Amino acid sequence: MGKGKMHNKHRNYDDENSWACGNWFEFLLVVALAIILLIGALVLVLFWVLYYRGGFAWNENPTLEFNLHPVLMIAGFITFSGFSMLLYRVGRCCRRIYVKLFHTIFHALAVPCVVVGFIAVLDSHNLANPPIRNFYSLHSWMGFVTMGLFALQFVVGFFSFLILLCCENATAGFRASLVPIHATFGILTFMLAVATCLTGLTEKTIFTLGVSYSYLGEEAIIINALAMTLVAGAIVMAYTLLREGFRYSGHILVSVQSEM
Amino acid sequence: MGKGKMHNKHRNYDDENSWACGNWFEFLLVVALAIILLIGALVLVLFWVLYYRGGFAWNENPTLEFNLHPVLMIAGFITFSGFSMLLYRVGRCCRRIYVKLFHTIFHALAVPCVVVGFIAVLDSHNLANPPIRNFYSLHSWMGFVTMGLFALQFVVGFFSFLILLCCENATAGFRASLVPIHATFGILTFMLAVATCLTGLTEKTIFTLGVSYSYLGEEAIIINALAMTLVAGAIVMAYTLLREGFRYSGHILVSVQSEM
Repeated sequence: MGKGKMHNKHRNYDDENSWACGNWFEFLLVVALAIILLIGALVLVLFWVLYYRGGFAWNENPTLEFNLHPVLMIAGFITFSGFSMLLYRVGRCCRRIYVKLFHTIFHALAVPCVVVGFIAVLDSHNLANPPIRNFYSLHSWMGFVTMGLFALQFVVGFFSFLILLCCENATAGFRASLVPIHATFGILTFMLAVATCLTGLTEKTIFTLGVSYSYLGEEAIIINALAMTLVAGAIVMAYTLLREGFRYSGHILVSVQSEM
Repeated sequence: MGKGKMHNKHRNYDDENSWACGNWFEFLLVVALAIILLIGALVLVLFWVLYYRGGFAWNENPTLEFNLHPVLMIAGFITFSGFSMLLYRVGRCCRRIYVKLFHTIFHALAVPCVVVGFIAVLDSHNLANPPIRNFYSLHSWMGFVTMGLFALQFVVGFFSFLILLCCENATAGFRASLVPIHATFGILTFMLAVATCLTGLTEKTIFTLGVSYSYLGEEAIIINALAMTLVAGAIVMAYTLLREGFRYSGHILVSVQSEM
């Protein structure tokens, strides 16, 4: 038993050491890059809509009401959801329940964005003259899949990881087995959201700029830059979330506590 | 030590048992679904191109030459690459080196598909009357990122996991540390490829069907079905590849051998 304990201690020491050397730099770089890209996408879509597309309006002007759609969907599905997922990598020193609560709050902030963004596109189609048909494009079908997965994740997450805490011990096994599935589908929902944004941007650009898109004017470059920010965001987020070493593991926390 | 060994054995027995119960069914279901979706996407794109878009030609007919682009890109980036990654989950009983070799062969099969698919779209633009500009759309920019990541993964994988085997012991640590990075970027390249296909399909559909897309005729439904097959493929592949329990681990293989 003594040998086992020493072996464990040695391994923890190694883990800590390797984090001190190169991993902290890598971790901070990747997290900083992720934050810049998540906020960068929101800033770029706001700039695009305000500077080139005439800003916002509610249903008195359906064309401008549409502009709420890309901004709110990127705010909800990319920026807020992205931050919410990053919390599980950044919040290494906080108590797990606080990380969980902020994870829920950030996702809860995404809900009104998605709902209003959805109403905005419906209004802008239905109130247009002549009205534009709904739910025909593959972008809209992908949007349904993304929103469905998001809702499912939110409901399952809320009940399993917060409500079921009321009978903590009885549900520990179930909750633990659900964690990797919830995490996998969370990353997947984010990737699908990025893909849906990219098809939406393609649609909007072709409908708005038409043939002039191919001459890569100012607006076209801004849209392509927004698309590339989303792609880079997806790459950096996937790397940050899937990198084994970045995982916030209770095991390490417990061993550190036992050493103190 | 005796106690430790018993504990180990007990854990392996548990692993085997839990696989026998529910995980085998889940594993086979998910792998079968992934195979159906990977082949399904190829069949659907072939059907679309042959039945609605007039089939194939080389550069004597640039419009028909374009049709090679979606088919070959889906064949290379989705079907072959998908199979190549699935091998690491399916080949549980084979020697690792065979899995590696077939992983390389499937990816090597993807290379000519991607190259000819790329030449086909260039030709179809340059030989059109009037010529169509290249590399302006976000689809093309995403295509560059995807092809770049694919090439990087191929070269790094080939040198690190096959060539460096010549001095096996000296490079073991380096190779082991590279495995999770190679795997993460592999899944990411697949997801990016799916997203790029979806923006490409959006472009082509709007350019070809125009306003009639919104009436969801036969062809529009086929294209949307193809898009949904790709989305479902991305979901099932991510689940299969990221699910911890499905991972082919040398640790289990070694313990099983020691039991025999």
